[in-house]
Amino acid sequence: METARNNLRVDGARLWSTLMETAAFGATPAGGINRLTLSPADGRVRDWFRAACEAAGLTVGTDSLGTQFALRPGRDSTRPPVATGSHLDTQPTGGRFDGILGTLAGLEVVRTLNDAGIETEAPILLVNWTNEEGSRYAPATMASAAHVGTFTAEDILARTDADGVSVGQALASLGIVATEPTGSRAIGAFVELHIEQGPILEAEAKTVGVVEGGQGILWFDGTITGFESHAGTTPMPRRRDAVLGLAELALAVERIALAHGPSAVGTLGEAVIGAPSRNVVPGRVRFTLDIRDPRAATLDAIEADVRAALADIAARRQLTATLDLVWRQEPVPFDPALVALVEREAEALGLAHRRMVSGASHDACNLALKVPTAMIFVPCKDGISHNEAESATPSDCTAGADVLLQTLLTLANRPALPLRD
Amino acid sequence: METARNNLRVDGARLWSTLMETAAFGATPAGGINRLTLSPADGRVRDWFRAACEAAGLTVGTDSLGTQFALRPGRDSTRPPVATGSHLDTQPTGGRFDGILGTLAGLEVVRTLNDAGIETEAPILLVNWTNEEGSRYAPATMASAAHVGTFTAEDILARTDADGVSVGQALASLGIVATEPTGSRAIGAFVELHIEQGPILEAEAKTVGVVEGGQGILWFDGTITGFESHAGTTPMPRRRDAVLGLAELALAVERIALAHGPSAVGTLGEAVIGAPSRNVVPGRVRFTLDIRDPRAATLDAIEADVRAALADIAARRQLTATLDLVWRQEPVPFDPALVALVEREAEALGLAHRRMVSGASHDACNLALKVPTAMIFVPCKDGISHNEAESATPSDCTAGADVLLQTLLTLANRPALPLRD
Repeated sequence: METARNNLRVDGARLWSTLMETAAFGATPAGGINRLTLSPADGRVRDWFRAACEAAGLTVGTDSLGTQFALRPGRDSTRPPVATGSHLDTQPTGGRFDGILGTLAGLEVVRTLNDAGIETEAPILLVNWTNEEGSRYAPATMASAAHVGTFTAEDILARTDADGVSVGQALASLGIVATEPTGSRAIGAFVELHIEQGPILEAEAKTVGVVEGGQGILWFDGTITGFESHAGTTPMPRRRDAVLGLAELALAVERIALAHGPSAVGTLGEAVIGAPSRNVVPGRVRFTLDIRDPRAATLDAIEADVRAALADIAARRQLTATLDLVWRQEPVPFDPALVALVEREAEALGLAHRRMVSGASHDACNLALKVPTAMIFVPCKDGISHNEAESATPSDCTAGADVLLQTLLTLANRPALPLRD
Repeated sequence: METARNNLRVDGARLWSTLMETAAFGATPAGGINRLTLSPADGRVRDWFRAACEAAGLTVGTDSLGTQFALRPGRDSTRPPVATGSHLDTQPTGGRFDGILGTLAGLEVVRTLNDAGIETEAPILLVNWTNEEGSRYAPATMASAAHVGTFTAEDILARTDADGVSVGQALASLGIVATEPTGSRAIGAFVELHIEQGPILEAEAKTVGVVEGGQGILWFDGTITGFESHAGTTPMPRRRDAVLGLAELALAVERIALAHGPSAVGTLGEAVIGAPSRNVVPGRVRFTLDIRDPRAATLDAIEADVRAALADIAARRQLTATLDLVWRQEPVPFDPALVALVEREAEALGLAHRRMVSGASHDACNLALKVPTAMIFVPCKDGISHNEAESATPSDCTAGADVLLQTLLTLANRPALPLRD
């Protein structure tokens, strides 16, 4: 049995054709997918997913936020299921892999187990989380967040999209009927396969990213105010130019992130000049900062350094500045034993791998607050994601699904929880 | 006679009350003026100006672009008039001095000469140029440019505002009827009084700026293109961040202008990030540059330095960049003898003065292409202009008008042109 298990591999061609089959739901001319959560196209892929799961012998339930739970029984029905999955919704100009790979690779794992006639000790649960993307409804990963109790289902159901349609109304319009309350589904552990959405694995020619956790995130809104004056009549030394203050800040954020590296990142992603004119020295600018690091203490240190840099810039240039923290997400470490298990399975499969941190947020980051959780990353071309050009190779998708298969098998056949040992 | 002339002073209180009287045409609640060219408010101030000139004994003509010419005869009607004036139109949220001071100070000079019973050798001509501001119709200073032949009147008459109303239609709607073709009015020399619109005189506690000419101007449109990527998943060293390129460019422009100083200025006044998002590394940015210096060779040198800096930034950061020159205005030197005359008159009046260059463009910069021209600047509070907060003191306005009076008297009583001697 152990030998058979170790030689077990997913059917890569079937996984790929399933990925391409579902890419038709919401397909865009440019080869991407427009499948906003709870849109008609999302309704069609949900129907397809339910039918495919039922065809694979799974029992499908739906919670009050529309999340689909497909259960494959184990020998011991008293054990909490070992869960996997991701999401089938996309950005408005999304790609064919973000979320979809993790969900359909879970289906492929079930199909592979079925083909091999393998029964696991613990049940296996395949999940399609509602609205991971956050494009139509805020926040992103809302259903998994509600599952672990960060929000109530009632709160989330009342959230509205840009047209004023609530989550509850959108669920009803697709005929989605809850069969269980949000948060009631038992989950013993969670493993999510996902494309990296970054360039590291490709650049280092690694096939598997062993994800140690999700980064912490700081979001800031800021302003810099100087004095608007005539671009022709104001001598350089007398200017109080808000854009020059912003320029120094942007470069300071880069320096500070590099100094706290290699995992620290800092981005000045938005900047808007107040009353811009080509012949006026800019007097006001608004901006945002996004700062991430897997270590909470490093986030604190970066924030202190950025605030000190901004104060220095403002003092030297006779500017005033504000910097308001509008969101702080604490770093989410994944379960060390489960991370180590993913690493061992990748190694046993002979796949080039490295440990890394997830720069983006995922449903797994919510699950990690409650149950042992890990993630498996595979490369995506040029690190591009949230884009119709998002691309991953069949062999990398297959490799990721094989790591998922082996990890789920090991977890589901372990004698007992707790996993931490 | 010479003694009487030297003791002659304008009536500062009358000048100030005239300024405040006309400020009612288009007055804004914040204490400024909204008097776009050829608007109903501009029509009312034009009617007031004609009546005031006629009451002062002047003969008022109007050219085909609506510019008002008010002539005070001299003893020798064969001599071309010595001209002064400025404009009565304002920015939509303009102040009470920009252009208005120079026009009404010319009226005050005439009234002063009338009161003293002084007849000059050459005639004196007071001009209210149409559309100096350029807010409603482009280009700015269009009427004085057409006067010297830079544009034809037909071209200018066909220009339209944002509502599609042409200059010709706007003139007709105010009932303005031309009595002479544009460019036909004889002018022997032109002296314009204006607020500085910059902070230098105030900072140095000077009352009079002796303007040596108008700066040359370079306007550039540029782009910087990198690669949009995820703010959470893209390591700092792998980024191609367009905003960081822009930040380096903005600081380089400042450094380069300072290196070519003290009169060189460079401004990055507009910058727009393409598809901005707080969690996306910016991939594209558009920007404008405004560079000015009174020396053509310095403009060339600054342009070369900026292009070299941008090329270096792009190469280091793996960005591509464009920088297109969209406008070059050559520096406009004023007549050296006339500049020296203004300086002598300021000195004789015991006023603190300094030579300077006009950072902004003025009707005088067009006149200088054809006739001996000079300008007189007086301080404005905090260098603020094109703003309802624009402010100048009664005593500085009076001092500027006194310099104008003395300069015009000397010019009009000189034995003969040419002025250059």
